[in-house]
Amino acid sequence: VARSIDLNVDAGESAGPYLYGDDENLFPWVSSVNVACGFHAGDPAVMRRTVDLAARNRLAVGAHVSYPDRAGFGRRFLAATPEEIYEDCLYQVGALEGFLRAAGLRLSHLKPHGALYNHASADPETALAVARAARAWDPALPAMLLAGSPGLAAVAQSGTPVLAEGFADRAYSVDGSLLPRSQPGSLLTDPLAVAHRAVRMVVEGNVETVSGEAVSLQCDTMCLHGDTPGASTLARAVREALALAGIEVRRAWPAN
Amino acid sequence: VARSIDLNVDAGESAGPYLYGDDENLFPWVSSVNVACGFHAGDPAVMRRTVDLAARNRLAVGAHVSYPDRAGFGRRFLAATPEEIYEDCLYQVGALEGFLRAAGLRLSHLKPHGALYNHASADPETALAVARAARAWDPALPAMLLAGSPGLAAVAQSGTPVLAEGFADRAYSVDGSLLPRSQPGSLLTDPLAVAHRAVRMVVEGNVETVSGEAVSLQCDTMCLHGDTPGASTLARAVREALALAGIEVRRAWPAN
Amino acid sequence: VARSIDLNVDAGESAGPYLYGDDENLFPWVSSVNVACGFHAGDPAVMRRTVDLAARNRLAVGAHVSYPDRAGFGRRFLAATPEEIYEDCLYQVGALEGFLRAAGLRLSHLKPHGALYNHASADPETALAVARAARAWDPALPAMLLAGSPGLAAVAQSGTPVLAEGFADRAYSVDGSLLPRSQPGSLLTDPLAVAHRAVRMVVEGNVETVSGEAVSLQCDTMCLHGDTPGASTLARAVREALALAGIEVRRAWPAN
Amino acid sequence: VARSIDLNVDAGESAGPYLYGDDENLFPWVSSVNVACGFHAGDPAVMRRTVDLAARNRLAVGAHVSYPDRAGFGRRFLAATPEEIYEDCLYQVGALEGFLRAAGLRLSHLKPHGALYNHASADPETALAVARAARAWDPALPAMLLAGSPGLAAVAQSGTPVLAEGFADRAYSVDGSLLPRSQPGSLLTDPLAVAHRAVRMVVEGNVETVSGEAVSLQCDTMCLHGDTPGASTLARAVREALALAGIEVRRAWPAN
Repeated sequence: VARSIDLNVDAGESAGPYLYGDDENLFPWVSSVNVACGFHAGDPAVMRRTVDLAARNRLAVGAHVSYPDRAGFGRRFLAATPEEIYEDCLYQVGALEGFLRAAGLRLSHLKPHGALYNHASADPETALAVARAARAWDPALPAMLLAGSPGLAAVAQSGTPVLAEGFADRAYSVDGSLLPRSQPGSLLTDPLAVAHRAVRMVVEGNVETVSGEAVSLQCDTMCLHGDTPGASTLARAVREALALAGIEVRRAWPAN
Repeated sequence: VARSIDLNVDAGESAGPYLYGDDENLFPWVSSVNVACGFHAGDPAVMRRTVDLAARNRLAVGAHVSYPDRAGFGRRFLAATPEEIYEDCLYQVGALEGFLRAAGLRLSHLKPHGALYNHASADPETALAVARAARAWDPALPAMLLAGSPGLAAVAQSGTPVLAEGFADRAYSVDGSLLPRSQPGSLLTDPLAVAHRAVRMVVEGNVETVSGEAVSLQCDTMCLHGDTPGASTLARAVREALALAGIEVRRAWPAN
Repeated sequence: VARSIDLNVDAGESAGPYLYGDDENLFPWVSSVNVACGFHAGDPAVMRRTVDLAARNRLAVGAHVSYPDRAGFGRRFLAATPEEIYEDCLYQVGALEGFLRAAGLRLSHLKPHGALYNHASADPETALAVARAARAWDPALPAMLLAGSPGLAAVAQSGTPVLAEGFADRAYSVDGSLLPRSQPGSLLTDPLAVAHRAVRMVVEGNVETVSGEAVSLQCDTMCLHGDTPGASTLARAVREALALAGIEVRRAWPAN
Repeated sequence: VARSIDLNVDAGESAGPYLYGDDENLFPWVSSVNVACGFHAGDPAVMRRTVDLAARNRLAVGAHVSYPDRAGFGRRFLAATPEEIYEDCLYQVGALEGFLRAAGLRLSHLKPHGALYNHASADPETALAVARAARAWDPALPAMLLAGSPGLAAVAQSGTPVLAEGFADRAYSVDGSLLPRSQPGSLLTDPLAVAHRAVRMVVEGNVETVSGEAVSLQCDTMCLHGDTPGASTLARAVREALALAGIEVRRAWPAN
């Protein structure tokens, strides 16, 4: 059978005079992007530019929603209530909509960013608050969370579509969770090794953990990091390895 | 013939622990509200609450878009470019959309706030930047600007629907422009006088200027201020005077 | 012997057009104030006005430093690193200094606000980050933390002066910690009951916990809340009860 | 006689994960720096790092104060009142003080940034608001403004020390004002040409305008831009040309 996988990248994280990431060189290698909505990064001008760039590359565009923490780039846990998370997500999803309409696109998915991603993946109550925002926006809008996580399971059970996300360039703990970024070796940077892991995730449906054993991992999408040195080289290596393995890179869910 | 007029009020200007205005007591007297979108006031929680309150009162809900100036409550001119104004407006309009969807409402109109309102009414280039955001969102979305202003005329000519706004509680200069707030007597607070002006605006289509002469003024909507002492008393006085004059208070444009 | 106690109140929490608290009516009853520095509330204009008001009331002025969380009024835990907390505190302390100089005052103390207060009182590492900022500013500057808390003990041991704070209007758990605000009965509002507790704290050095038993509590200062209904009535009741008990209300530490 | 000039550069304009400018490579070539204070750029962590870097390079450190406009990097005029400008400046100057104390430095000077610089240089009322903040902080603190400008003259007359600033890499209009950045040719990038202008400014006390004629220009300091490509190459060229001309690069005013 024909195999396929979605490749996604976080995008639109520049702001005002500040450049961040390498959207121009990464977009050709992926099939979907997660656009910052101003709470951890991005601003209206960057959002417009990023959506337009995604449209030119025919990519699916999702909202990359965050805790309101520009100072910490959304990477710090914030003790927001589920109600606050719901409201903040809904605000950010909407903020992106205008730029999508102007570009003739529809919102593809919702992905929490940084600390909110980690917390929503680990904590069902938080995940459900995010999912509630997705549902209020559009019952068919999928929420992207960590493959195999309790948060993902809770959202799926609630009836909101989910997108299980794997990380070809991150190390996995024995229990299938991501090794925290603060730990040495948590980020893989060798293009060949990452490309190999990406193919294995799709073909075998598993990933090698830090202990050397394989743990099952069913992904709808794989994230490539755009803010690491050599990001576009890595993206290209993954893309080409997938092609060699006969795996098509395309959005894994219906255009909603 | 049956006469009617829209009464609008700025709303949702609270933020976090800060209460501002008197939405609860004003909404019963008006037919449409302009909801702050976080750039001069409001926040996601307040936006949600305000939209829900508007829904319960069956009011038309517009986006009250502003320069990004929370510190100055959007009341200070900012030398933003037309592109920046377009992007900021589109961001804010979208941000409101999620709460409208959750409440089962559609966006009714777009109204610039404070310094952006004054500048857009006086300056066609600025008005057209605002109108371009309205059009990108929905070609049928009307933009609300000062009745008789150059900005309103430019928007109307560009093909974007307009709503001409009059102020029953503000003094008008001889040339039909609003007397600046900084000048004494610019704000009328006597309920009877304001109610009288409101009726006259609708029935005679004019307003008495500071010189005592009448100047023609064709309005689709009249603004009542929600942040002045006795705002709801004033709103009630206007509403009742309009009723006595046989004028219905309702939205003057089709639900889009 | 003559007894004395400091009474402090959080102040300067208004912002722009938003009024919060009742500084004018509370300042006459206290001996020191903690001024918001823009991270959870306040702004440069409010800080100036608040410092000037404190100067006219001859009060000691401390910096009320917070996590950077205006949206949450500083009441939400944020996973900031000790370095970030140190830097944020130093920034805020300095920001207040200009207004103190303009008013001819010197900074009296440093008090964390909201979630940072709770976390610093409970967690020595966080408390030491705050204390490090106080020390960098002025080695004689005292840090105000919860009486009897691990954070206070750690700061005291590090050589930074401390001010142990008691709460006459908050319920105490059996272990001497504050009952969380989310629990019923956590906030006492009866002026007589609060005044009685205040006197007892000074005279007997203890407080009655929710179980009815007394727990020892040595305070240098007592906090009165300024953002509760009837705050100034409560403040007056406490002040008068202290006077009747022969307890002077004054700053308990040298003017630095 | 021995000639000398101060070379200054805007610094500390990074923020969170965003890098901006090239402080590390520019600091060795200048004698003073203007540190962003969080209103247009910078944050507490960046301020700390920048002040520490300046201390290691034995540079004079000034506060680079701005309108509150992070979205526009402080480059857009904002209709703030003189009172608001005074308060915003005082807040920012103070915010820098903590990091100076921690590094064992004293504040050297106050320089408005971007739109506030242009407006203060052109408008005496604005300049005096800035100067009032400098004076409230320390009557000996000098304010840096455009050489030959009305704002500089007004501040000098008010008794606040001034530092007249020239721009070796900016084109001058016939009347001695800076050619706006929006005009072609406003920014000179050829290191030799800029170095030549710098020497001429010091030795001859004049600058060639766009018309080819010389206009008198008495400077206490010259600004080098840190956010242009090749900034450090340019800085080095200027520094070396000054050395060849026997001009010492050092702060032109007493350490206050």
